[in-house]
Amino acid sequence: MMSDLQGSLPFDNKLHEECGIFGVFGCDDQETAYNIYSGLFALQHRGQESCGMAVNNNGVVSSHKDMGLVSDVFNKDILEKLPGQMGIGHVRYSTTGCSMRENTQPLVLKYIKGTLSIAHNGNLTNTAELRDELERTGAIFQTTTDSEVMSYLIARERVNCGSVEEAVRRIMPRIQGAYSLLVMSPRKLIAARDPHGFRPLVIGQLENAWVFASETCALDVVGAVYVRDVEPGEIVVADERGLTSIKTETPEKTSLCIFEYIYFARPDSQINGLSVYEARQESGRILARQHPVEADLVIGVPESGIDAAIGYSQASGIPYGKGFVKNNYVGRTFIKPQQKQRENAVRLKLNVLGNTVRGKRVVMLDDSIVRGTTSARLVHMLKNAGATEVHVRISSPPFLWPCYFGTDVPERSQLSAVRNSLDEICRSLGADSLGYLELDSLHEMLCGREIDYCDACFSGNYPVAPPKSEASIDQFVK
Amino acid sequence: MMSDLQGSLPFDNKLHEECGIFGVFGCDDQETAYNIYSGLFALQHRGQESCGMAVNNNGVVSSHKDMGLVSDVFNKDILEKLPGQMGIGHVRYSTTGCSMRENTQPLVLKYIKGTLSIAHNGNLTNTAELRDELERTGAIFQTTTDSEVMSYLIARERVNCGSVEEAVRRIMPRIQGAYSLLVMSPRKLIAARDPHGFRPLVIGQLENAWVFASETCALDVVGAVYVRDVEPGEIVVADERGLTSIKTETPEKTSLCIFEYIYFARPDSQINGLSVYEARQESGRILARQHPVEADLVIGVPESGIDAAIGYSQASGIPYGKGFVKNNYVGRTFIKPQQKQRENAVRLKLNVLGNTVRGKRVVMLDDSIVRGTTSARLVHMLKNAGATEVHVRISSPPFLWPCYFGTDVPERSQLSAVRNSLDEICRSLGADSLGYLELDSLHEMLCGREIDYCDACFSGNYPVAPPKSEASIDQFVK
Amino acid sequence: MMSDLQGSLPFDNKLHEECGIFGVFGCDDQETAYNIYSGLFALQHRGQESCGMAVNNNGVVSSHKDMGLVSDVFNKDILEKLPGQMGIGHVRYSTTGCSMRENTQPLVLKYIKGTLSIAHNGNLTNTAELRDELERTGAIFQTTTDSEVMSYLIARERVNCGSVEEAVRRIMPRIQGAYSLLVMSPRKLIAARDPHGFRPLVIGQLENAWVFASETCALDVVGAVYVRDVEPGEIVVADERGLTSIKTETPEKTSLCIFEYIYFARPDSQINGLSVYEARQESGRILARQHPVEADLVIGVPESGIDAAIGYSQASGIPYGKGFVKNNYVGRTFIKPQQKQRENAVRLKLNVLGNTVRGKRVVMLDDSIVRGTTSARLVHMLKNAGATEVHVRISSPPFLWPCYFGTDVPERSQLSAVRNSLDEICRSLGADSLGYLELDSLHEMLCGREIDYCDACFSGNYPVAPPKSEASIDQFVK
Amino acid sequence: MMSDLQGSLPFDNKLHEECGIFGVFGCDDQETAYNIYSGLFALQHRGQESCGMAVNNNGVVSSHKDMGLVSDVFNKDILEKLPGQMGIGHVRYSTTGCSMRENTQPLVLKYIKGTLSIAHNGNLTNTAELRDELERTGAIFQTTTDSEVMSYLIARERVNCGSVEEAVRRIMPRIQGAYSLLVMSPRKLIAARDPHGFRPLVIGQLENAWVFASETCALDVVGAVYVRDVEPGEIVVADERGLTSIKTETPEKTSLCIFEYIYFARPDSQINGLSVYEARQESGRILARQHPVEADLVIGVPESGIDAAIGYSQASGIPYGKGFVKNNYVGRTFIKPQQKQRENAVRLKLNVLGNTVRGKRVVMLDDSIVRGTTSARLVHMLKNAGATEVHVRISSPPFLWPCYFGTDVPERSQLSAVRNSLDEICRSLGADSLGYLELDSLHEMLCGREIDYCDACFSGNYPVAPPKSEASIDQFVK
Repeated sequence: MMSDLQGSLPFDNKLHEECGIFGVFGCDDQETAYNIYSGLFALQHRGQESCGMAVNNNGVVSSHKDMGLVSDVFNKDILEKLPGQMGIGHVRYSTTGCSMRENTQPLVLKYIKGTLSIAHNGNLTNTAELRDELERTGAIFQTTTDSEVMSYLIARERVNCGSVEEAVRRIMPRIQGAYSLLVMSPRKLIAARDPHGFRPLVIGQLENAWVFASETCALDVVGAVYVRDVEPGEIVVADERGLTSIKTETPEKTSLCIFEYIYFARPDSQINGLSVYEARQESGRILARQHPVEADLVIGVPESGIDAAIGYSQASGIPYGKGFVKNNYVGRTFIKPQQKQRENAVRLKLNVLGNTVRGKRVVMLDDSIVRGTTSARLVHMLKNAGATEVHVRISSPPFLWPCYFGTDVPERSQLSAVRNSLDEICRSLGADSLGYLELDSLHEMLCGREIDYCDACFSGNYPVAPPKSEASIDQFVK
Repeated sequence: MMSDLQGSLPFDNKLHEECGIFGVFGCDDQETAYNIYSGLFALQHRGQESCGMAVNNNGVVSSHKDMGLVSDVFNKDILEKLPGQMGIGHVRYSTTGCSMRENTQPLVLKYIKGTLSIAHNGNLTNTAELRDELERTGAIFQTTTDSEVMSYLIARERVNCGSVEEAVRRIMPRIQGAYSLLVMSPRKLIAARDPHGFRPLVIGQLENAWVFASETCALDVVGAVYVRDVEPGEIVVADERGLTSIKTETPEKTSLCIFEYIYFARPDSQINGLSVYEARQESGRILARQHPVEADLVIGVPESGIDAAIGYSQASGIPYGKGFVKNNYVGRTFIKPQQKQRENAVRLKLNVLGNTVRGKRVVMLDDSIVRGTTSARLVHMLKNAGATEVHVRISSPPFLWPCYFGTDVPERSQLSAVRNSLDEICRSLGADSLGYLELDSLHEMLCGREIDYCDACFSGNYPVAPPKSEASIDQFVK
Repeated sequence: MMSDLQGSLPFDNKLHEECGIFGVFGCDDQETAYNIYSGLFALQHRGQESCGMAVNNNGVVSSHKDMGLVSDVFNKDILEKLPGQMGIGHVRYSTTGCSMRENTQPLVLKYIKGTLSIAHNGNLTNTAELRDELERTGAIFQTTTDSEVMSYLIARERVNCGSVEEAVRRIMPRIQGAYSLLVMSPRKLIAARDPHGFRPLVIGQLENAWVFASETCALDVVGAVYVRDVEPGEIVVADERGLTSIKTETPEKTSLCIFEYIYFARPDSQINGLSVYEARQESGRILARQHPVEADLVIGVPESGIDAAIGYSQASGIPYGKGFVKNNYVGRTFIKPQQKQRENAVRLKLNVLGNTVRGKRVVMLDDSIVRGTTSARLVHMLKNAGATEVHVRISSPPFLWPCYFGTDVPERSQLSAVRNSLDEICRSLGADSLGYLELDSLHEMLCGREIDYCDACFSGNYPVAPPKSEASIDQFVK
Repeated sequence: MMSDLQGSLPFDNKLHEECGIFGVFGCDDQETAYNIYSGLFALQHRGQESCGMAVNNNGVVSSHKDMGLVSDVFNKDILEKLPGQMGIGHVRYSTTGCSMRENTQPLVLKYIKGTLSIAHNGNLTNTAELRDELERTGAIFQTTTDSEVMSYLIARERVNCGSVEEAVRRIMPRIQGAYSLLVMSPRKLIAARDPHGFRPLVIGQLENAWVFASETCALDVVGAVYVRDVEPGEIVVADERGLTSIKTETPEKTSLCIFEYIYFARPDSQINGLSVYEARQESGRILARQHPVEADLVIGVPESGIDAAIGYSQASGIPYGKGFVKNNYVGRTFIKPQQKQRENAVRLKLNVLGNTVRGKRVVMLDDSIVRGTTSARLVHMLKNAGATEVHVRISSPPFLWPCYFGTDVPERSQLSAVRNSLDEICRSLGADSLGYLELDSLHEMLCGREIDYCDACFSGNYPVAPPKSEASIDQFVK
């Protein structure tokens, strides 16, 4: 439910990945910008702070970007002034303090070989070292984004090699962490995914055009056919000759962020060919086996909890029903109510269906617990509405470790599961029972697919060394 | 699904009621505006074109209203400049052509007895006659709203009687049609509901304050306790002495708009004590009995179709699942795509969960069919995604007649059910079967409650004579 | 200098008339709105708070109005959506407390005979009585404007007579005070000026079209040729047959507001055939005779003081020079500086030309003194810059009485001339001498023209009884 | 008159310098931003496209910048969120095509030594070479501004030297052209002016704080006392120890842009101690001697033509008068009228005072003629209004050469004086005589001061080699 419960309301479990990207190569002049617009629209859940696009009209790049939602930043006039045959777009989510206009993407820059546009999704772990190294050789930085760091590396490498894609290939061993990347040169559109494959990136075909997107749902809205996922460590070049693939070295085991299935991605997307909705349903089925309970009704916390709830209901035989109604009109600008009315604030975003739960033993499915305060409020609302029992089931293991690859997990001291036992958490929620998905069962959620994933936020097993700048980092790495 | 699929997209089944209202009496100075803001927020689904509020600060009325959503029109600065101990608010839905700023509500006016603020919900059927009569005695009209007509009537009656509530009582026999009404005088807040009770209106209590709202979901968000519905033909006066009820003459059978249960109201609201969600689930259960089919999956068209689908699943035993994902970020300003991309446009708002429906026989629940074009697209999307069969079930009878009481049904010539047989509609949808809720079963949906309702849009049985200005009106009235 | 020194800055001499009006009859569809736009632009100095226009497209009236300057409220899209063959427009200045969107003009209303649009300029003195009388017969008021009162009167009279112009003629004896009025009926454009002729109103011809405007400068910008002034008490009807004039009863002596010449009107306008610039120059010449002084330089306080200074220089032979530079970018939204910087605030709007005045004996011309604080600051700035003497000359007599006809003079207690002798004022300004234009010389300023004028703010001789609602009104009327 | 007659109106003589700068060191936390705001306000005439400021709060830099006027871009909330003890600001004028948000200043960047903020005014002539050189060593550019180039140079030099001011000193021999520069490091504010001193830059003192500004009028509005001009080639460092001056090598003859006196600067500014207003008056006096004529009235084209007209009047004895009235409300967003109304368009910005010029022989002073079309219209307006003769006097020599130092002169082919004789131009203006200030007399305008200036746009004598990238550049350099 997290993506919908942010803003200025007193919700605790903000947990976000940075950004979504979309690119298209080979469209008609007037369709490029519309397709990017539609694609960004479908990826809006991955970032609501700012968005932008850069289009390439026979080598001349125009761009438009600003703070705000896709529907606020763009209008017909603006789109019509962005003709082109290829382009890239970006939606950005940002943590506090980095919310500045300068950080909007795509980044468009002039360098020795002409114009380069870049948009990326993820989080590097050796940014500080790279910036330091670049600054020592005369680089100046105008943003705080990893995109600018990567742009410098590509620009400098490009001088010594024959093509942009080769420059991208050469820098990949130097940049560590999570990144899905779109680079637009005067005549090529290049997509690349980090060797661990932390963040998803897919390829689609739209008549004679090629599309790259963070999720397949963005292919659907432009009418593109899903071709395949960009592979971890792969560079895919779209140019007038078609698609070319360049493989770079990858670790033995790749590391797709498992939280993409649990929460980030839209349920109508598929990652590695596996439907996100199916995975969520499956997590509910697993929970029904691992944490069965006698009850009258299974409900889900919108949105992702609903998918798990349907699965729990199927596996348990307990009827599924709607327990909460979400107000879709609650936006970023929602006014924080007075202290006195604060307790009703959660109801502005999420109201309980009193008649449905009254007198019932309820199983409530949610995707995760971060600080625990929102979950406690929801349990309280259900009991207030007359639920006789509330059994909380979480479709992921407890959060115990910070994420360095783009998921905005709070500091360890604020994670309810770090200092409290299961019983303590259950009591603090006011729930009658509490069950998390077990760490060992995460792979079951993937419905038998052979997908290697990163579960470091649950297990502490980091596939890549965390940033050195992080204080007392050793304690986090097992 | 209709309230979410409007805008400039090529959806056909726009069907809307006009407006939602909210009033509060007896709050602290700074809380009145915040409470109205929250209440309007919860009623936003009843009107997204414009909104406004008027607050009464010891007899001095301030107001703010504009085109746009509640979150766009109001901000903290504005709310803080609206202190008061009572106030009323309004969200407005409007049909094309009447979308002018002048029509925003509440209407605040000076008359012989001071300041009067008025907000209402519904549609009068004798507006033309009343305006004509008023104009003949020197009235001038600055808006095209029924509120202005009612204001005149109240203002003129007030001269001859001892109180505003008495003036309201005297005009009620003269105004015909649907109206739920809030009137704020210098010291009183008056709620009234037309004798047929077309539109809902409820009373809540918030500590020492009284709340009136179109739906109970608006009571929840301010923390108010539901007291009871304002009765058809009832006038309820909130003043410093508490609540006073005045009953006016009502017809033998009242006429709550049945479409409030089917589509308009939020599922977490209750009307006449009956949960809207329960009624929708029940409609699904009835459809399962009336139109059974052998299938693998039951899905609902968001939002109201989901509730019916859950009921259908329960009664049929066919598993419920998610078939569509709605993009909550699609707003009023969404840009209409190029002709070429038009077919993908529906996907921007509603995408199909391909993996879920592939290879399955699917039952698709929706609340209504107006022109049929959107439904046909959804069926097409499901089949394209691999559904082997699509059985459409509609949780209401076919639309056959226009509504004169606030529901924005298109002209008769555009209603698919008027000229086509069930088989023809089914074929035009591309569905494998089609089943409507039967007209006689509407009362079953109400779960055994004794609620008299209006089903004129399905039956043509108008509880009140349609407007005379309507051309060839006779043919519509049986 | 007053019109440019308003806003949130600590200037004292705000003195404003309400509004400017512009109307056109008989243009091409697309030119009507553009002409009104241009005309309002030229009249912007008469009101910066809000503006609007209503156009009549073969009987169908469309309008657009909002708070803000003409260039902010209108854009190309909006103008193109306002086709029509005639229309009226309005710019509004408003006193504090009445600054509400509801009060924007023109007022467009439906009444028994169709649609009526009305815009006016001035101030009625019996508004309270008229509103009271109208309310007692069932009128409701949604604005606090005199326009609404006049609309009611016209609408009610129209029922009993054969034409709108006849209705206007019948109400004119009932409304007292200052008004220049434009009324647009389905097929006619009617201009009327109160019998005293307080506010200017002129007729122009633009090819086959007729134009009405508050000032001739608005004729110039649309390329219209000045025909003549609408006479006091005259009603001029423009319809397809051309212009028709209706004369109503007027007092023996009419009362054009003399302050139009002194300050309100643009210098490039002419009123009654007399150039405003010429009158201002003449006032300077008179001052040179009445209050001669030995000096080195004559300067003017922008804008109107400059015209008088040129005249003073001509008559005295003392060289004219620029003493102040005005910052034209200072707008309504200018931020009030911190207390500490307050003394520099005046310099943001008006800076002194130090090198010019250094070591010189300076004559400073200004149009009026209200509270005296701004004048004192200007004198102080000049002396600080090195002026050895500053002689203040005011091109109007001292303000002693309130205005009830549209000029926003502060309360009597705040007028510096009411309680202080000439010497006291001179000392408080820090000036070396002070000279006002003598009351008896006002007619000289009119360059020999036979123009009857109102000088009540200087003389207390009110041509119309002040409003009864004014407390202790007797003391003001001699 | 040029700065006020731009926008979308069909005026020809746009001629603009790029930008104004303002910096302050040593203010109270809350006053820094307000002072910069006021300073930029006073410099608004030097750039209306965009503006911004960066403030340094104990080493932490915050910034705000956007397209628009100072009064639009900043408001109280924004200023209050910009606390600091020093800061710099910028107003930007831009030629078409470079009007992008990325180019707004100040530029704030992170480099090896921390944060650097930079704002500048002018135009480099070897930008292309410098960018090329930087790109070859790995620089990437996100803007098209010279500021970014200078930032790189400073950042790279800073690695090899002990201070920012030393880095500035080292790069100055490498950058050619016109620049007045403000650089803010964590603890210092540095001002620098190119060795030729093309653009003005002054030092002021405000209690314990130091102020740098493009013009002295910006010192006045914050209450700062003028100290002296920054000298050509001088670097002035403000830090906690006070002001330090560093001199760099300068050419024998410096080259202040003479057009600063003629047109750019505000009349209340002084450059090199000479009042701009005095210089303009003087130019009028010279013209009276060089091009005397028998006439009845001297008028000026607002704004700068007015100052010259006053001088012409003084020297010739012909009375000065107001010939034109400017509409101060004409802003950037003014709508271009229909073709048909185009001839009236000029009147929206500038109307003639018909009564004043009727029957008179008029001398019209203007600052320059670029294409000649606007001047022709003004002459036409005067004659239409009844002027019997119009004698045009221009307070600068004819434009014959392009400017590479920041003045936006049109292409040579569009300059009326390049292809036409004096007689031809006079005829095309419809004037009765035409006189330019003679090239040799420019130094007279400086009232005897020893000020070396650049007059390349008139003479073709470029003090610095024009950019190499300029096509067929040789022909321009004598």
